Amino acid sequence: MKVVKFGGSSLAAGEQIKKVFQIVCEDPTRKIVVVSAPGKRSNEDRKVTDLLIQCAEKHFGGENCAEIIEAIFCRYETICIELELPMSIVESIKEDFAERLMGGYKDKFSFYDRMKACGEDYMAQLVACFFQAQGLQAAYINPKEAGLIVSREPGNAQVLPVSYEKLSNLKEKSGITVFPGFFGYSEEGEIMTFSRSGSDVTGAILAKAVQADVYENFTDVNAVYSVNPAIVLNPKEVRELTYREMRELSYGGFTVLHDEALIPAFSERIPVHIRNTNNSSAPGTKIVSRREEEIGPVVGIASDHGFCSIYVSKYLMNREIGFGRKLLTILEEFGLSYEHSPSGIDDISIILREDQLTPSAESKIIERIKMELKADEVVIQHHLSLIMVVGEGMRHNVGTMSRASKALAEARVNIEMINQGSSEVSMMFGVKEIDEKRAVEALYREFFAPVPV
Amino acid sequence: MKVVKFGGSSLAAGEQIKKVFQIVCEDPTRKIVVVSAPGKRSNEDRKVTDLLIQCAEKHFGGENCAEIIEAIFCRYETICIELELPMSIVESIKEDFAERLMGGYKDKFSFYDRMKACGEDYMAQLVACFFQAQGLQAAYINPKEAGLIVSREPGNAQVLPVSYEKLSNLKEKSGITVFPGFFGYSEEGEIMTFSRSGSDVTGAILAKAVQADVYENFTDVNAVYSVNPAIVLNPKEVRELTYREMRELSYGGFTVLHDEALIPAFSERIPVHIRNTNNSSAPGTKIVSRREEEIGPVVGIASDHGFCSIYVSKYLMNREIGFGRKLLTILEEFGLSYEHSPSGIDDISIILREDQLTPSAESKIIERIKMELKADEVVIQHHLSLIMVVGEGMRHNVGTMSRASKALAEARVNIEMINQGSSEVSMMFGVKEIDEKRAVEALYREFFAPVPV
Repeated sequence: MKVVKFGGSSLAAGEQIKKVFQIVCEDPTRKIVVVSAPGKRSNEDRKVTDLLIQCAEKHFGGENCAEIIEAIFCRYETICIELELPMSIVESIKEDFAERLMGGYKDKFSFYDRMKACGEDYMAQLVACFFQAQGLQAAYINPKEAGLIVSREPGNAQVLPVSYEKLSNLKEKSGITVFPGFFGYSEEGEIMTFSRSGSDVTGAILAKAVQADVYENFTDVNAVYSVNPAIVLNPKEVRELTYREMRELSYGGFTVLHDEALIPAFSERIPVHIRNTNNSSAPGTKIVSRREEEIGPVVGIASDHGFCSIYVSKYLMNREIGFGRKLLTILEEFGLSYEHSPSGIDDISIILREDQLTPSAESKIIERIKMELKADEVVIQHHLSLIMVVGEGMRHNVGTMSRASKALAEARVNIEMINQGSSEVSMMFGVKEIDEKRAVEALYREFFAPVPV
Repeated sequence: MKVVKFGGSSLAAGEQIKKVFQIVCEDPTRKIVVVSAPGKRSNEDRKVTDLLIQCAEKHFGGENCAEIIEAIFCRYETICIELELPMSIVESIKEDFAERLMGGYKDKFSFYDRMKACGEDYMAQLVACFFQAQGLQAAYINPKEAGLIVSREPGNAQVLPVSYEKLSNLKEKSGITVFPGFFGYSEEGEIMTFSRSGSDVTGAILAKAVQADVYENFTDVNAVYSVNPAIVLNPKEVRELTYREMRELSYGGFTVLHDEALIPAFSERIPVHIRNTNNSSAPGTKIVSRREEEIGPVVGIASDHGFCSIYVSKYLMNREIGFGRKLLTILEEFGLSYEHSPSGIDDISIILREDQLTPSAESKIIERIKMELKADEVVIQHHLSLIMVVGEGMRHNVGTMSRASKALAEARVNIEMINQGSSEVSMMFGVKEIDEKRAVEALYREFFAPVPV
């Protein structure tokens, strides 16, 4: 049994929904279909969810939102016409929408959540209706009825463990179940949405609940690439990634899937298969708990910029029990989250995202570290990029570091820092931002294929 | 003006003290001579300080210590005979010794300190006497008279800032001043000894007080070596090291000088010159604040074993503000001092000396990390060695890491971890203990010279 989730671009127009239908028909084990709200049809288009948020905000602020409402309805009308569905569906959508908009609410955020959730909910109804019209046994199910109970945290709901038993009954349903993504219901019966990538969360929860063989996640890319296509043209596709590799790559700017969203699937070791709605014959990328086949030490190279380092040195730092902990406590008191802390004997560097720092916070931090820890030197270096070279195969591969550092040296990239923990699923290089592109190209050349220089 | 310190092996016998005299005569700027207690004359011999400690302990425990006292006196008598000095010196030593032994004391540790300090004190008197007998203008000075005032911490005294002004008067003395190392006086007038390498501390304090041009430290080695001679036969000598390089090297098992002892000299940027009493024409090794000449990226390779790593992984660890700090707090509560903490995205390894861990502490630590931090996995890996590749020249030398990791790969050494902070004075490699020797040889071969394999 498969749980299949379709993203917004796969549902942006009638043409796309027909592809979804084809995909669902192709494989009779695709029993549960999770849908997002309609996405963009072009770069200039707006996502329905964004329109809904704007509408909720305007309405809450007492502003007129007739135009936005019109735009939202228009999207569903257009899809109905494209799919030759009866207009009565749009009428019932309009009715429901008016009720949601005018109904009472406990607070602003639960009102927003109720409005935001429309996009997926209506889409699921439309898709179920279309499937039925094509002669497929299919039914929309409401998350409340299905038993998707979540914590009362508007915009950041967490699934409650009690949900899984109830949701597991979906296994027994005959035909296709069309499930709206992005939201569940609190125990008091209010609509609560998940955080980012909420439809991915719904799919992962359902995959866990029904113990799916695979969780298929249809997007608009053929696969996860071994390197950012904006840096290297037509990079190699990755066929299979482990969860850990995926996580390390997603850290370095890979944004195909939101890793947190997949936790329910990961926790049950259910493979996640990333596929392309617009090219369903492409093999896609499978994310698995363990890779069967060895495909070389490195599966991907990710990079991200916007980091800085706080360098602290103090003679005999190494002898001071608690120095590192005290330093991290100061940073925590400034609300700073750090990424790494490579260290020498008498120095330590804390790497963090620089957008967390304002110039005034910077000078306060330097001041406190100097005063409280009696550091000899505190220097903040800006404009750093981190490059992750990722692969489970590195684990016992003598020489991967040698190849990587040789490639960087030949590209005249100075390595500002290296952090390789004992996990050996990744190596991290810190370089200056201006060297990032050249460094990634050099590493790609070394581990994958020639790159035109 | 130079402050010159001679270690125990340079003063172990009359023959050695004649060399000391030669060295002092050779250079008229050698005005202040700091002496240790007589060291070993052969491998089977015992250091006078060790005899003194044993004597103090026995006496305090009410045991008969006549034999040990005899052995102590015998050392000074022998030296007197070898140097053709009047036996009256030994008589006055015996008198003083009896007074110290039988005198009152506040506590055990201050009694021990008073006894331990004899070795240097008598040596300084003897040396001054010998210098005078050779026609040199020389005088013993007592640290109390000179103004070396220290904190009342037996065995771990710290110099008090007030000392420096008084000690600076030593500059004005004509002739040679012979100063006993290892101890000072508390404000109440009790003898207090420094911790390890106490004579080095005295020399560094005097160098600072008189603003010496150089602090010469005479030992029994020609120089600091670029690598441990027990691993590589006849390794290259190092001519000039910066303080930071010295410190990084001393961390990795280099024990020529106790780095903490040199702080007073370092703080004033006074060069420390390590030389050999038995080969005073050898150029030795200078430790300076800044090296003038570039001598390649790497100046030395140090290694030490007996480390372990605590590996902690948790999915999405990276998003958790405070995770690292909490982990370090747990270790601190077990009294553990850690060396490094290389990290991946969702894992972190804490490297520490394994002699700090007992099996029962280990399981408690694992338990707490799992419970309190909800870690997915906690694994302790034993028998690791750390290898430091050290050199200020690495700083902007693209390719040093490449050369080092290539050398290790070719020697089939798997790199368990790498930690390179932004200081770039050193690169640290973690390897399995069984690979340490092979790894150090490979690195030496790469950066210095061929090694017979």
